[in-house]
Amino acid sequence: MPDTPPVALDAMGGDHAPHELVAGAVRATRELGVRVVLVGQPRPIYEALAAHGATDEIPIVRAEQTVGMDEGALATLRRPRSSVAVACHLVRRGDAAAVVSAGSTAAVVATGRLRLRGQPGVLRPAIAVTLPTLPEPTVLLDAGATADVKPEMLVQFAQLGAAYAETALGMPHPRVGLLTIGSETEKGNKVTRRAHELLATTPGLDFAGNVEGHDLLTGKVNVIVTDGFTGNVALKTMEGSVRYTLTELREAIAASRPARLGAVLQRGALRRLARRLDPEQYGGAVLLGLNGTVVIAHGASKAPAIASACALAASLAARGVVARIGERLAASRPHHRLW
Amino acid sequence: MPDTPPVALDAMGGDHAPHELVAGAVRATRELGVRVVLVGQPRPIYEALAAHGATDEIPIVRAEQTVGMDEGALATLRRPRSSVAVACHLVRRGDAAAVVSAGSTAAVVATGRLRLRGQPGVLRPAIAVTLPTLPEPTVLLDAGATADVKPEMLVQFAQLGAAYAETALGMPHPRVGLLTIGSETEKGNKVTRRAHELLATTPGLDFAGNVEGHDLLTGKVNVIVTDGFTGNVALKTMEGSVRYTLTELREAIAASRPARLGAVLQRGALRRLARRLDPEQYGGAVLLGLNGTVVIAHGASKAPAIASACALAASLAARGVVARIGERLAASRPHHRLW
Repeated sequence: MPDTPPVALDAMGGDHAPHELVAGAVRATRELGVRVVLVGQPRPIYEALAAHGATDEIPIVRAEQTVGMDEGALATLRRPRSSVAVACHLVRRGDAAAVVSAGSTAAVVATGRLRLRGQPGVLRPAIAVTLPTLPEPTVLLDAGATADVKPEMLVQFAQLGAAYAETALGMPHPRVGLLTIGSETEKGNKVTRRAHELLATTPGLDFAGNVEGHDLLTGKVNVIVTDGFTGNVALKTMEGSVRYTLTELREAIAASRPARLGAVLQRGALRRLARRLDPEQYGGAVLLGLNGTVVIAHGASKAPAIASACALAASLAARGVVARIGERLAASRPHHRLW
Repeated sequence: MPDTPPVALDAMGGDHAPHELVAGAVRATRELGVRVVLVGQPRPIYEALAAHGATDEIPIVRAEQTVGMDEGALATLRRPRSSVAVACHLVRRGDAAAVVSAGSTAAVVATGRLRLRGQPGVLRPAIAVTLPTLPEPTVLLDAGATADVKPEMLVQFAQLGAAYAETALGMPHPRVGLLTIGSETEKGNKVTRRAHELLATTPGLDFAGNVEGHDLLTGKVNVIVTDGFTGNVALKTMEGSVRYTLTELREAIAASRPARLGAVLQRGALRRLARRLDPEQYGGAVLLGLNGTVVIAHGASKAPAIASACALAASLAARGVVARIGERLAASRPHHRLW
């Protein structure tokens, strides 16, 4: 895509900044054909680029300040020249198509809200993650941007998630479920009970009703809507449970002699499964609802995950997820009349 | 325990009522030495007992009404003579030590609240479940009794959970964690941030700070406190993720020839792991905070799980979990003065 602006990659965010970030940018450029600009402190970025012989391939945009992985929302507000703030600024000016950061989620969300602002009519942003269900993935949102919600925000999250499923995953008619604690309409807490009523009467939305925690990986719906607190707890519970089961399995296998022999025979199958369920592989959370696309990579991301995140960001920008969200919200607005 | 009253088992609740319930009562009586009374419609219970040759061993208490598995809280309020209501009544009169029901959770909670009433000073009840962590189990509460909470209720849940860990699991100094979305104090939603402040200053409580979703199975703390909405979502997410991983693993194994051979060799290890992580095996949720012990068995429970639930109920009553909760709440009351 030579005519679209490049992806602005926050080179200073993440556990392995800047080296793995720069390596990811090189990989995205050379192997995936994604144009990238690196944002951050020029000297370490230049040196890392030089190690790849790539100083002529990828431009650098200077940002003096950085935000540590342990810093929260407040730190970012005090640093208008942080690498992630400058990356957002590039998108706002039209000099970049999207932002990618592996920095602290709270800092990226706060900076994005401040520098890109919410899309017209969007009450709060939400983080969408893609769960590795088969045959089709499942979008879960909010995974942690907005911890305290009102029912109306959950309805908007449904629209954000549906727009994401349409544009990013090519699903023509995404079915949306509300994450709660029982399949019946009246189950849940105060917020979800009211959200259920609103979702059931929202035009243009294929609302499939309530879903529960065990539906995260069954592919029952295409989009699962929840608040950022519950979504974050559920996502981390899922990741922890998958990791625990695989670890226990390896130990159970190692404990008995015939099982040890069996393990050698199926190493390939086990490794492929572990990789498919590894959040750093399927990861790439997307902050939706702002005037620009922001992809939040896992803090521990290495070059391949960073390259994937850059490709995802470029693809989302090219497919117009922001515009699609705007269309969906406009179409669902109650009492919307043309004359 | 010949001197303590028997456990009142709701023979009409659960997917396999009354046959598996009666079979569970027979097993509890004969194999575990637990005294049981069966509560429900006398005729089908008597016939099921006769099939085991156990009509002389286990008494029946008549209850004309039943609550269906798909019925919620409202149905129970209209049925004062339901099997679970009569079982609660036996505890209240001192004719039973505890209640066991495999009925709909919402119905059991509503009936328990109405018939047994909350312990003095307890704002809301909570359901405690025991997660299969090693070397020690982890108590998670609330798993679904109280969906909308105030911070003060979470502090009380911490006391309920600590009393449960002390009495049921024999942990002398249970460490309590607050389930939220970041380890730092200021992370979370409004309710958990305030609850964190209160928990940190509650006397007699070993508060270990925030824990996250991936800590459910790591054994980082002995007791994990959360509201009934988040706890229910997290628990079902955990169960679904474990089941999903084991299923995917079996499929991955079946897909390749050498792996298939390996699978035969390690069938025993895989089966033992699946059983340890099966909620129907480790299950047995306990409703805490009422004037009496109520064990809620999984709706799909068969005889062995019912027998375990009866043994758990008898043990909790004998160890005085209700009294221990009362002591803990009294000791933690602020501005508590004797003169």
